Amino acid sequence: MPSLVNTLIEQVRGGRRRSIGQLITRVENGDVAAKEVLRELYRDTGRAHVVGVTGPPGTGKSTLVNEIAKTLRRQKKSVAIVAVDPSSPFSGGALLGDRIRMRDLSGDEGVFIRSMATRGSLGGLARATSDVVGILDAAAFDVIIVETVGAGQAEVDIARAAHTVIVIESPGMGDEIQTIKAGILETADILVVNKADRPGADRTVKALRAMLQMGASSGPLRHHGQIMATSANPDGAESAQPGWIPSVYETIATEGKGVEAVVETVRSHMSYLNSSGELAKRELAQSRRKIDAMLQEAFTARLNNAVEPTEMERIVAAVAERRLDPYSAVEQLLNGVPM
Amino acid sequence: MPSLVNTLIEQVRGGRRRSIGQLITRVENGDVAAKEVLRELYRDTGRAHVVGVTGPPGTGKSTLVNEIAKTLRRQKKSVAIVAVDPSSPFSGGALLGDRIRMRDLSGDEGVFIRSMATRGSLGGLARATSDVVGILDAAAFDVIIVETVGAGQAEVDIARAAHTVIVIESPGMGDEIQTIKAGILETADILVVNKADRPGADRTVKALRAMLQMGASSGPLRHHGQIMATSANPDGAESAQPGWIPSVYETIATEGKGVEAVVETVRSHMSYLNSSGELAKRELAQSRRKIDAMLQEAFTARLNNAVEPTEMERIVAAVAERRLDPYSAVEQLLNGVPM
Repeated sequence: MPSLVNTLIEQVRGGRRRSIGQLITRVENGDVAAKEVLRELYRDTGRAHVVGVTGPPGTGKSTLVNEIAKTLRRQKKSVAIVAVDPSSPFSGGALLGDRIRMRDLSGDEGVFIRSMATRGSLGGLARATSDVVGILDAAAFDVIIVETVGAGQAEVDIARAAHTVIVIESPGMGDEIQTIKAGILETADILVVNKADRPGADRTVKALRAMLQMGASSGPLRHHGQIMATSANPDGAESAQPGWIPSVYETIATEGKGVEAVVETVRSHMSYLNSSGELAKRELAQSRRKIDAMLQEAFTARLNNAVEPTEMERIVAAVAERRLDPYSAVEQLLNGVPM
Repeated sequence: MPSLVNTLIEQVRGGRRRSIGQLITRVENGDVAAKEVLRELYRDTGRAHVVGVTGPPGTGKSTLVNEIAKTLRRQKKSVAIVAVDPSSPFSGGALLGDRIRMRDLSGDEGVFIRSMATRGSLGGLARATSDVVGILDAAAFDVIIVETVGAGQAEVDIARAAHTVIVIESPGMGDEIQTIKAGILETADILVVNKADRPGADRTVKALRAMLQMGASSGPLRHHGQIMATSANPDGAESAQPGWIPSVYETIATEGKGVEAVVETVRSHMSYLNSSGELAKRELAQSRRKIDAMLQEAFTARLNNAVEPTEMERIVAAVAERRLDPYSAVEQLLNGVPM
């Protein structure tokens, strides 16, 4: 193994910030050497508590994440923040709410902040985020907060990779609650109504509690890991025990109000995961998803290697023009793939 | 080729309803012989006008689809309706709004109705729907209406496979407009506010027009095929010409009001697709997606064949427990796949 790689591994393990940043950039750029480093670092992962934070824009998410980080810092825990913006083409540095973030947290050696954005596909972003979390885990951060904007498939994928998922709302966003209901609410372990001093906060809290109730009464919906249980993924099968019941918290992040209760619940959620055996189940499901995604990637790479782009175009055109059926086309293509 | 298959092919080509139904059931069940038939029928496809109809539950979608079908029948066009319900585990017969549908359309030889539901994965449903559309296309139906409920990824995938996409809203569903905005609105060629005699219809029409305007001003968003253009799919590249501008129509489907204007726009959209060259582009993109999906399926099948489930479980557990890194795991798995 080249000594550059070995050095990088040692420096990341030692928590050297600059090396961590360099390795993340290499991962984002699809650097081959980075894969070697990730492979070596993998045995050092699985120790951090990964917390996903998501919700619509305008809910004060970044401010709340900063306050959570500050609370954790007072408890002497090291914190890494990965801010993921699927709608932004820019990576590196700090992007989401970066001015406030920098003012509050910069200069603290126990905090690491990184922004990530879409390069190519959303699926690729979920993969890259998972690799970055692995790096920060190996670098021995106690808590890794993954912050995402929005409520799409990318957010659900990213949330799934977290141990604890916090979903944020703010008052008067009745419309967005609908959006969240579609896919994010089912993954929430903790719900927060931020800007709780604004008019309509009670209504939002009630609406969220009603949704939780609805979910609870319809069986598995409310149970953590529900998405896996209803998908075709066999490792998502769940026992019938009640499990974790999400609660709704109110915060005023700009004044730091209500944040400690949220942080305390984050901690008790990890205790629940440990004692219930849910943590081991989630690690299994997560490993399975990771392996599946990497297998698909490897297959696509081999296919792209074996089939010339012009050949692919020729075949696609023949299918579009009904000169060739897609079943025969796929057979032709697979014959050329050494695998 | 077995004569059973040959007979089935001839009967489907001849539009024999019972054979069409049998072949669809075989496709849904993953029958191997069905693949042979689909392969043979493929050259007969590409003639029907495929119309996707989607929108939230409660908008009167099924009633509107029935009225569109009746209008097309008056114009002497044969119509097939495929009703897709991703939330239902039942297939076969007619399900979505079936009572009204049966009363209005049954007994007409120029109409074929079929319901499809999730068996296993949502991706599988999109694939099966595409195969069923192919069968009905080969059976020489002039128009194939694919009706889906909801606003998730499955609906977007299914909508993409249509030539013309109609998105339905109804008054006072402000919340659902948000949901639609997330992924469906961008695929809409025609927007319909049904139940237009209800209070709030004007508001809904205005809200949809405002959304279209927003999309138009932000460039490619409003351009048909936008999803492909912003995805990693290279064949979705679009020219800068304005293209098709979606309009918002008002209907009262229960009274048949406003339906003819919608049907007329469906027809003129196909003229646009033909004259602009957009049809050929969409056929190419659709062929590419179909081939990609089938390649992934073939890969998964070979992998499942080569790797015992217990072996897979062992490897996933080793990765979850950090005894094995996922990169090495994937290498091990791929070594066993003869491809």
